[in-house]
Amino acid sequence: MELTLDGSTVRGGRQARERFHDARGYGRVVDGDLELAPVEAAHLLYRGDVETVRDAGSGDRLDFRALLSSDVVSEIDVLVYKDLRDRGFYLSPTDEPNADFLVYPRGKGPWDDEIAHRIRAISERTALSARTLGETVLAVVDEESSIAYLETGRPDVRGTTDADLPRGVPAELLDDRVFVWEPPAVLYERGFYGQPLDDGGPLQLSLLEAAALARRGVLALPADEIVERGRTVEGERFDRRLAVYRALRDRNVVPKTGYKFGADFRTYADIEHVEELGHSELLVRVLPADHAFAPRDLALDVRLAHGVRKRMVFALAGETIEWLSVSRLTP
Amino acid sequence: MELTLDGSTVRGGRQARERFHDARGYGRVVDGDLELAPVEAAHLLYRGDVETVRDAGSGDRLDFRALLSSDVVSEIDVLVYKDLRDRGFYLSPTDEPNADFLVYPRGKGPWDDEIAHRIRAISERTALSARTLGETVLAVVDEESSIAYLETGRPDVRGTTDADLPRGVPAELLDDRVFVWEPPAVLYERGFYGQPLDDGGPLQLSLLEAAALARRGVLALPADEIVERGRTVEGERFDRRLAVYRALRDRNVVPKTGYKFGADFRTYADIEHVEELGHSELLVRVLPADHAFAPRDLALDVRLAHGVRKRMVFALAGETIEWLSVSRLTP
Repeated sequence: MELTLDGSTVRGGRQARERFHDARGYGRVVDGDLELAPVEAAHLLYRGDVETVRDAGSGDRLDFRALLSSDVVSEIDVLVYKDLRDRGFYLSPTDEPNADFLVYPRGKGPWDDEIAHRIRAISERTALSARTLGETVLAVVDEESSIAYLETGRPDVRGTTDADLPRGVPAELLDDRVFVWEPPAVLYERGFYGQPLDDGGPLQLSLLEAAALARRGVLALPADEIVERGRTVEGERFDRRLAVYRALRDRNVVPKTGYKFGADFRTYADIEHVEELGHSELLVRVLPADHAFAPRDLALDVRLAHGVRKRMVFALAGETIEWLSVSRLTP
Repeated sequence: MELTLDGSTVRGGRQARERFHDARGYGRVVDGDLELAPVEAAHLLYRGDVETVRDAGSGDRLDFRALLSSDVVSEIDVLVYKDLRDRGFYLSPTDEPNADFLVYPRGKGPWDDEIAHRIRAISERTALSARTLGETVLAVVDEESSIAYLETGRPDVRGTTDADLPRGVPAELLDDRVFVWEPPAVLYERGFYGQPLDDGGPLQLSLLEAAALARRGVLALPADEIVERGRTVEGERFDRRLAVYRALRDRNVVPKTGYKFGADFRTYADIEHVEELGHSELLVRVLPADHAFAPRDLALDVRLAHGVRKRMVFALAGETIEWLSVSRLTP
């Protein structure tokens, strides 16, 4: 039973098809014969199911080592393919955009019509355009060849916090925050705006909170002046963060600073009164829509969010705001 | 009892000295009278111990709000000073470089000769030059006016892992890693180099591990070729990381990838055999010596390290490698 490498396809006959495809989910059937992607052939070679593959071009016989050293297959693909096989999955290489493998549910294979995961196999050194994420699972191979899986999604971010706020509340812009010297209780207690200096004392608003409130007419301060100050201390990042802050409030979700978690916001979906405040649910990081992630940064954010039992969500700020969730997955 | 603001000093007489300095640790004594920094006067105003301070220049009487809105005192300093007083400390403003306040041990004051913490008060938006850290505690005021304390230090990083390695081991450079097809057991088991593809299978070395081993003559591969490949995939960052990798190995500490923690390395100080591997102790992030931290990034690293019970250490790579530890502190 001979397998032949022809360009970037490995071919075998009927017997190979029965043994590897029909019984074990490798490759695809073409006219009753077997076609394998090089990564599938590499796995058969690694396992010793096949000893060599004949290179139709050179006539050479390639073993696992020779195939891995050649250009027809990437180490990354081989490592991820092997890892998923070791976890008991059948999977097939795919030409879909942003995906490298279709993984079937355990116990199913390419002859069924069900897909458990679309997997994108990358090195930890590959920059990842945020736009291409949201449907696939990332299999990130780190520099020491361990593999971590990250599930990406496009969540619907919504809450129920909606307090009736007064208008024209006097406030004062200091260097880097706004003080409301005599704050209406509803502002903090129901809207969870600001931070009292002491119980019942003046309310300190962040520039983001103040700008959003001023735009709604709640504060008797010109919003533009606050935004100007925000840009002075933070540059254009302030505009992006304000857009996301307002989008979250529009969705009845309360954003508070995520500074202690290294994020832009932590969020509370359902606040009735600050005295019954639960844990925040999301960590939100604001990014420009054309951002490219370093997988290492992604790993850091997801690990931290997981550790504090929150969900990591990226707000991609462009013409509109898009939401991208990333979480750990053990396939 | 009148206090007078004169330029950037607030002065009071003997009675003020007795009441505020001798009894409660505010200010310093000059010729039997009291001198306060504006931040101390602001705190007395906020508490209502003093109603107003007379501005010697304009003749105006300034209350807390007026003093806070003026240029003589920063909100950040006022918030940090208040927080430390609320925690039961006496503290004094200082002119020391990289510090804003000297905090005395609880129960002690400026008349004693003991200092608990040197505190640097900053906004979360202030960039922090790595060179200036190592002796002070950072009090970081976030955009919503909460304060977090970060202790910085200059740790001695050392371990006891020291395996006798063979020389001239054959190895093969693939795209982004090095394979040792027939690895001597000591390499992985005692030195904790690489990651076996399967138990007893070929050993996968990262480019860093391979470059360090090649430089020592352990691998029969030209080190320069591996370094060249590292630079191709990572740029000059590879050289910095290799320098830190080698410095850690020279100190008998084993660096393994910190990818899953978003760091460069996690480290093991005392490995006898991989089968008795304990938890790693440090997370190491490699930075150029002239790096300036965003406090938010610092918060993220320190939070994550704390969550996984490791110590966060930054390796500042310049002519030499300097080690900087940062950890959470509750004063």
